Amino acid sequence: MSNPVLVEVTRGSVVESGHRGAVSVFDADGKPVWEIGDTDRPVFPRSAVKAIQALPLVESGAADAYGFGNRELALACASHSGEPAHVELARAMLARAGLDKTALECGAHWPNHEATIALARAGDVPSALHNNCSGKHAGFLCTCVHSGIAHQGYVKEGHAQQEMVRDAMQSVTGAAHNTDNSAVDGCSIPTYAVPLKSFAQGFARMATGRGFSPERAKAAKRLLSACMAEPFLVAGTGKADVALMQAAPGRIFVKTGAEGVYCAALPELGLGIALKCDDGAGRGAEVMIAAVLAKLLRADEAVAARLTQLAHPAVESRIGVKVGLLRPTAALN
Amino acid sequence: MSNPVLVEVTRGSVVESGHRGAVSVFDADGKPVWEIGDTDRPVFPRSAVKAIQALPLVESGAADAYGFGNRELALACASHSGEPAHVELARAMLARAGLDKTALECGAHWPNHEATIALARAGDVPSALHNNCSGKHAGFLCTCVHSGIAHQGYVKEGHAQQEMVRDAMQSVTGAAHNTDNSAVDGCSIPTYAVPLKSFAQGFARMATGRGFSPERAKAAKRLLSACMAEPFLVAGTGKADVALMQAAPGRIFVKTGAEGVYCAALPELGLGIALKCDDGAGRGAEVMIAAVLAKLLRADEAVAARLTQLAHPAVESRIGVKVGLLRPTAALN
Repeated sequence: MSNPVLVEVTRGSVVESGHRGAVSVFDADGKPVWEIGDTDRPVFPRSAVKAIQALPLVESGAADAYGFGNRELALACASHSGEPAHVELARAMLARAGLDKTALECGAHWPNHEATIALARAGDVPSALHNNCSGKHAGFLCTCVHSGIAHQGYVKEGHAQQEMVRDAMQSVTGAAHNTDNSAVDGCSIPTYAVPLKSFAQGFARMATGRGFSPERAKAAKRLLSACMAEPFLVAGTGKADVALMQAAPGRIFVKTGAEGVYCAALPELGLGIALKCDDGAGRGAEVMIAAVLAKLLRADEAVAARLTQLAHPAVESRIGVKVGLLRPTAALN
Repeated sequence: MSNPVLVEVTRGSVVESGHRGAVSVFDADGKPVWEIGDTDRPVFPRSAVKAIQALPLVESGAADAYGFGNRELALACASHSGEPAHVELARAMLARAGLDKTALECGAHWPNHEATIALARAGDVPSALHNNCSGKHAGFLCTCVHSGIAHQGYVKEGHAQQEMVRDAMQSVTGAAHNTDNSAVDGCSIPTYAVPLKSFAQGFARMATGRGFSPERAKAAKRLLSACMAEPFLVAGTGKADVALMQAAPGRIFVKTGAEGVYCAALPELGLGIALKCDDGAGRGAEVMIAAVLAKLLRADEAVAARLTQLAHPAVESRIGVKVGLLRPTAALN
């Protein structure tokens, strides 16, 4: 089946490109609230589920043992831009467990544009600390060390750390995660394709604790609260996730994932949200999530207006003149 | 209507994302040879038509007056990566007309990754010469100076230079270009949305000269030949256009445009090709054009094998392990 076009990219008065996608919104009773397109289709959530993947860090007691507050927990859930604040915090988290960057198995890559320019000007090159997933990996390593698990190979399917993550993912989403639907993520850990709606259901639980043990409910709340308190550490300068969470501080949790995925939660409404842009475009997914949040929070006019603004980013020429825009289609009204 | 999915992006054994699109192949008699999807839909060709936009540079006599050979003409048709060879050649072209980079109105942007690192390490910043369109703009400026036209404002709709370009575009594609279907391109010049098939028809003419005056036929041949002789100058290190043209030297002309467009020509078969990836993704368009060329050139097994390889690029993790791939769907068979 064909998902609807949810985002149009205009230039002048013409629609130049379009992005199709599927959206799922569930409440904590497991009831669908809003569904667009095929939400049963399996989707790799990629980095959009880092808050779920961080549950063992809190539940194992590692976060408390190492004195991690909102900043460290936000970074453990982050796809960060590799800016100095991110890199230094990842380094500090590892140091609490007696480790350094050599323990990271995520690989290195150049950070965002500004951080790349700064690194190159300093005659430096990126390390694994600059990897956008280094906070998540630091959290994994801290969990291993605190739990007395040998950390070497912690990224591999079957390692005790990944088994903890898989258990959390299965339990929170209610979907089977196994070798049949697994593949390897960009940072070398397993990622599992399960129905899009499972993530909406899972984040409704994360936001409310409904159906969780008291310990898990507390851990989930602590992680989402940490991200909402420190949005910059979850992403970076100029990132959509920061702007979206800052649109209603403490009330919106969002997390992007590669290939056009978003997971989100609105604790006050007890809602979980998941969406996937069919073609994998981040720009498409960003407009989709902004438009979905604007509709769900329409009772608060100021917040909805800001989110609607974020759902209409400009297309600019190289000299900064606005020559078009992205906009949600009527399917998102 | 809905164009078919032409490219799948896999991770493990799962299709993670997909790209829809339309493809048009015409012969020089104006007959459709292969059509997929809605090829009547207006599309902005963006940079894919730079070879047509460069016709006035040759036809005005400017190229000869300034002693431009294959290298300069290739750069005039290029979306280059801003590597030192591109930047220096654009500078030299301007110097032939007594101009320097201050005459360029395309704006500056950071070049490709490697060139950005090198610039930053040197403590430098990019100029308009690094703009991927600087060769085209240098060609425009040389045309103005040679023709005695005041070059200030040469990017604007209505300026004599853009009128020459518009006349060439209309004449070659057979489609009306006017203010009703115009918008502003990234480098500030007008771009016009006309049916996708018009570009396939236009490039069949560019490849064969059919229906052109002898002068235009010669200019078109000279420009396409220059690009095929100097593919690196048309694009840059690691770029798909270079690999595609090198797959059969002197036999394949291709040119990408922003938002997932390709125009191409196969002079030996007298065919013109145009395609658009609906969502604007370059990675999708690259697989589409490689697959289309592989089919059209299937009589040459070695060339078709290389093109088929280019139609199946790997998806890699951050440590360089292949975790998936892009591949054309059966619609492109």
